[in-house]
Amino acid sequence: VTVPRVAAVVGLGLIGGSLARDLAARGVRVLGADRDAAAVRAAMEAGVVAAALGPGLEGVEEADTVVLAVPVSAASALLASAAPRLRGARLVTDAGSTKRGILAAATGAGLGDRFVGGHPLAGDHRAGWDASRAGLFAGARVFLCPAPEAGDRARGLARALWTAVGGVVEEMEADAHDAGLAWRSHLPQAASTALAGALAAAGVPRSALGPGGRDATRLAGSSPEVWSAILMENADHVGDALRHFERWTRALRTALDARDAAAVERMLDAARRWSAE
Amino acid sequence: VTVPRVAAVVGLGLIGGSLARDLAARGVRVLGADRDAAAVRAAMEAGVVAAALGPGLEGVEEADTVVLAVPVSAASALLASAAPRLRGARLVTDAGSTKRGILAAATGAGLGDRFVGGHPLAGDHRAGWDASRAGLFAGARVFLCPAPEAGDRARGLARALWTAVGGVVEEMEADAHDAGLAWRSHLPQAASTALAGALAAAGVPRSALGPGGRDATRLAGSSPEVWSAILMENADHVGDALRHFERWTRALRTALDARDAAAVERMLDAARRWSAE
Repeated sequence: VTVPRVAAVVGLGLIGGSLARDLAARGVRVLGADRDAAAVRAAMEAGVVAAALGPGLEGVEEADTVVLAVPVSAASALLASAAPRLRGARLVTDAGSTKRGILAAATGAGLGDRFVGGHPLAGDHRAGWDASRAGLFAGARVFLCPAPEAGDRARGLARALWTAVGGVVEEMEADAHDAGLAWRSHLPQAASTALAGALAAAGVPRSALGPGGRDATRLAGSSPEVWSAILMENADHVGDALRHFERWTRALRTALDARDAAAVERMLDAARRWSAE
Repeated sequence: VTVPRVAAVVGLGLIGGSLARDLAARGVRVLGADRDAAAVRAAMEAGVVAAALGPGLEGVEEADTVVLAVPVSAASALLASAAPRLRGARLVTDAGSTKRGILAAATGAGLGDRFVGGHPLAGDHRAGWDASRAGLFAGARVFLCPAPEAGDRARGLARALWTAVGGVVEEMEADAHDAGLAWRSHLPQAASTALAGALAAAGVPRSALGPGGRDATRLAGSSPEVWSAILMENADHVGDALRHFERWTRALRTALDARDAAAVERMLDAARRWSAE
């Protein structure tokens, strides 16, 4: 597969930092930017980032591929403000967990012909350059959502980029992506947050939980900034998923209130069968 | 610390099997029983169980300590049916996640003077003899709830038993235990079950989840038999905890419906602060 000659990675956190590591290891010249100057310094000292971009992405014109790896709302704002500098790139992509907003922003900025949104299903509750590592995307599914105006060249480059770092790519429509992710990713995040919030309000510290409870609340440690942007952008689909989840929670509680052992066991059974599939 | 000379372990699953391994390793003669004959055979072949008890616990009279490591409802029934054979034991204990029911059963069976309920905070979603292992209780907190009539000798033996296998024991009242566990253990189990149930109903397979989502639903793979008994026995306290959790979930969803970014971030923040404590 073709790798970029020069790639700019904006945001050197878990996702951007890991991608920068993998690209540099494949001989790509990587330009880097991060609002945290220490992250850029660390990435340069590690030999991953060859040169730093300016605060307004000055220098990004050298890159044939530009990857935005910042929270989804920041990525949309960046496309609008830096559009003039991005018109020479052959591919502009991102790594956000929602895709409708960023595609609309790319089209609005006149970059739709070269924009293919990306979403690697990698990463966890950790964040920042220090959490980044080589090989993060090996075997990971990567959803690609091309802007409606995106050409074959940009689509091919996006596939090549993520395939080069080990991703298994799959193209889909942005709305189908966001609806699916609301269930498979955003609902578990919201449920874990609500569980942690309820425990915090009740004065139960995390240290009081067993290993299972710590697993159930692990996602609650995720970045509030990253996740409020995701949940807000996907509020319609996440709201639907949460309404279904609320019905399930209420049904279980109602069965307990009624001391209906058969109903309780039926629900535990359904959950276990799903777990074992 | 004093270990029993002869201990009977009824139920050779994750908890009972692990306790039997640790006791046998400390020179205790272990008598074993399990409704699954293969588990008893495996425990004897492993040199852990020296002799099998009969289906009505025939032979248990030889044991000075009897540990019931079966689901909480089964443990209560067993105390009633096997009481005549247990009157010679110096300590009868259990390992269930709820304590009010078993203490009432012990008192009802006339065994209160020698009954000290136990609850090791160990174990996870796995189950059965094959999941048992030496050292499971090393460093684990173990709650002890003596029956009101329990004498100092039984209390001392219970502390010695769990301390011998590495547990850190703590005595408490049964109602305080059950109220606390509703939050720290039973609520996470119920939330994980509801999340898995909602995903199952929506047709989202577990394989579609990322690592965080798989963590959040891990407890849903627990034994329905074990957990329906726990949730039913503690239905009042678990119902209260679930009602608080429902309010938190609804508040998050309502903030999303209203596109209230500040409220969403505030909730994510509260959950993260709790996680980092």
